[in-house]
Amino acid sequence: MADKKPVNHIRLTSHPDGQAPGVPLRWGESEPLRRGPVVATLSDPANRNVIGTHSGAYSIYRALAVSAGKLPQDHKADLTNTSPAAQVGPHPAWSDPKRIVSLDPWGAVASQVFRAYAEQGVDYRPTIAVTRAHINMPEVREAMAAGRLKVDGDLVAANGDVKVVKAAVEPVWYLPGIAERFGLTEGALRRGLFEHTGGMYPELITRPDLHVFLPPIGGLSLYVFGNINSLADRDVPLAARVHDECNGSDVFGSDICTCRPYLVHGIEECVRMAQQGGVGLIVYHRKEGRALGEVTKFLVYNARKRQEGGDSAATYFHRTECVAGVQDMRFQELMPDVLHWLGITRIHRFISMSDMKHDAIVRSGIEILERVPIPDGLIPADAKVEMEAKKAAGYFTRGPVADAGELAQVKGRDLDA
Amino acid sequence: MADKKPVNHIRLTSHPDGQAPGVPLRWGESEPLRRGPVVATLSDPANRNVIGTHSGAYSIYRALAVSAGKLPQDHKADLTNTSPAAQVGPHPAWSDPKRIVSLDPWGAVASQVFRAYAEQGVDYRPTIAVTRAHINMPEVREAMAAGRLKVDGDLVAANGDVKVVKAAVEPVWYLPGIAERFGLTEGALRRGLFEHTGGMYPELITRPDLHVFLPPIGGLSLYVFGNINSLADRDVPLAARVHDECNGSDVFGSDICTCRPYLVHGIEECVRMAQQGGVGLIVYHRKEGRALGEVTKFLVYNARKRQEGGDSAATYFHRTECVAGVQDMRFQELMPDVLHWLGITRIHRFISMSDMKHDAIVRSGIEILERVPIPDGLIPADAKVEMEAKKAAGYFTRGPVADAGELAQVKGRDLDA
Repeated sequence: MADKKPVNHIRLTSHPDGQAPGVPLRWGESEPLRRGPVVATLSDPANRNVIGTHSGAYSIYRALAVSAGKLPQDHKADLTNTSPAAQVGPHPAWSDPKRIVSLDPWGAVASQVFRAYAEQGVDYRPTIAVTRAHINMPEVREAMAAGRLKVDGDLVAANGDVKVVKAAVEPVWYLPGIAERFGLTEGALRRGLFEHTGGMYPELITRPDLHVFLPPIGGLSLYVFGNINSLADRDVPLAARVHDECNGSDVFGSDICTCRPYLVHGIEECVRMAQQGGVGLIVYHRKEGRALGEVTKFLVYNARKRQEGGDSAATYFHRTECVAGVQDMRFQELMPDVLHWLGITRIHRFISMSDMKHDAIVRSGIEILERVPIPDGLIPADAKVEMEAKKAAGYFTRGPVADAGELAQVKGRDLDA
Repeated sequence: MADKKPVNHIRLTSHPDGQAPGVPLRWGESEPLRRGPVVATLSDPANRNVIGTHSGAYSIYRALAVSAGKLPQDHKADLTNTSPAAQVGPHPAWSDPKRIVSLDPWGAVASQVFRAYAEQGVDYRPTIAVTRAHINMPEVREAMAAGRLKVDGDLVAANGDVKVVKAAVEPVWYLPGIAERFGLTEGALRRGLFEHTGGMYPELITRPDLHVFLPPIGGLSLYVFGNINSLADRDVPLAARVHDECNGSDVFGSDICTCRPYLVHGIEECVRMAQQGGVGLIVYHRKEGRALGEVTKFLVYNARKRQEGGDSAATYFHRTECVAGVQDMRFQELMPDVLHWLGITRIHRFISMSDMKHDAIVRSGIEILERVPIPDGLIPADAKVEMEAKKAAGYFTRGPVADAGELAQVKGRDLDA
């Protein structure tokens, strides 16, 4: 089945044809028709104004579907009835090309605001979807049973259902803005992304006229409790947690970290805030294992639990660095974009102890009034290693911070226990 | 900050140099040193024997970390103490180049079996990590309180902790084998993957001598309950669920589908089977929204709930097809690979109603003795639309299947309700 003949008539990359792309994409323009839609269609290459294709990493499955003859190459989405179930913006940050650089602020309303392009046959897709849902979590039911959350018949039903507006957001990277966040030239960023992936997307090099990239990575989801329009009102109290995916805890309840317990505590705070006339927000980023991926994470677990002296808060970060070369690859520099998309300028209760998240948000111009640590009772015994190490490294706490001697005493379970 | 000068001295793609790669990669060879390790290092291009880099979609974050100066380009992982916490294989399927094509069977033990290459300075990485954990889920505690699960002091502790062996598996695609699964030539597959991603990885075209690709997609996790060595013993009863990610339900408990309830039921079945002397397995694939991604999924939710007549089992699949062009992109054809990696030849209780999963597993040569549907009491009211539509489309059930008229009567909640 393998055919080793060189395959002909394939264009390995594209080059600027000397004129601007058929459809403009002027990042930061306030008037949508001047801004222009994100056009990633493969059916009409002349109109493409980005590098890459839609759906983040799922673009590879789409390519497989087309290759396998399951999906027509020129399928055009029928977007009837798909428009946002709640309105977001436009907010002033949408027309600031430096404030939002990792998602398309017009991505949810593309079908509406760019209709004039659709009428000219331009095939573009929304990159954000906003819907409504009921969620039902056992820990919320437990909080109701314990009297910490009340049924109100609107936000919270007697069976534990909680009403939310939720959105899924696909990554859309404005490369000059991303580069600036990291203190790089656009050229250095583009070259780095190309070379250090082993040669992904040569258009990063050959199409300096295209400044927007749809990277094959996971995006984010967000959940709003209460009136979504209140998010942009700095006088309405807002409880917010920005959570980074941890499948092992978020889904399976692993006891080595505090991810699901803190997430659930954030949801409880959000519900309570909304019931008191405020609003709540959970942002969920697909950045498994500090964006190092789960293979690296599990390798580090083994190294932590097998090291001489056992798993210890004193060596917590060092073990990750041995395996991965860094402690963290989440790049919180890009994280505040979604908050600006929602029009947020002040967070009253920030349900996170992360100094990296806190500092990134504040640096981006959003005020944080109060930080809410995870209640001690929610920390699994084996997760104390992580918690003490993080507090010693600068995470927010109202309690004492362990010194080197004390950190060495905070021990986790053995691997085989 | 934008620099529009063409960037020079960049090699846009590589070409075969007329001799085989420095390190062989002979897929399906039974002797590891003849098989050779997966070498994706960028520090030593001459030894590379694959297209792409490690960590699936997280390779983009790695490229960002190197570009931003946070990670040295030539960082070599210190893999001390990271070896698997439980042994898997080798099993006969490991040396069958057609049986396993989407993961590297030697990926967990790479550090051990390929040591001779490391001694020659070859920089390779494991693509699978195996560790041990305790998990604690509220639904398991509920099952204990209801008397459906018992404390045994070993697998299940009084506080609800359940002991597992778990593994994370990174995608490693042997392109000739992938192509064969889909009835394509390798050339057609490679060209399709290149062109329908908008030009990702020209080496798919220019390096016909490289047959292995590390695609930037999510991988899978697996959880084993009981003795992992029993998985390969066809006489030890095995309960298994193959689950595809659904963040909205798995983490947040959305009531529009049965994902978390069925997953949790699967875990309960696995624990019970292990307590009765058998073994349990949950496989978790990162294939959000049938591998269409969450933006598409939420668009479909809106279209379903707003269509004339409201959300209905009769039009359930049609709405997805309108938006995405297909009903499903999960490609269960590749899914059984992980079961063969574990040495499984028989599943006694298969905790899934999916005909696609069942058929793919059976076609791959694994026997399935019994199929276990989700108990009716676990189906949220709003998820009945999905459940009845799936049963009518061929999903396994022991109960009645709705006809067209009955399907039209199965209605979900309005979007704003």
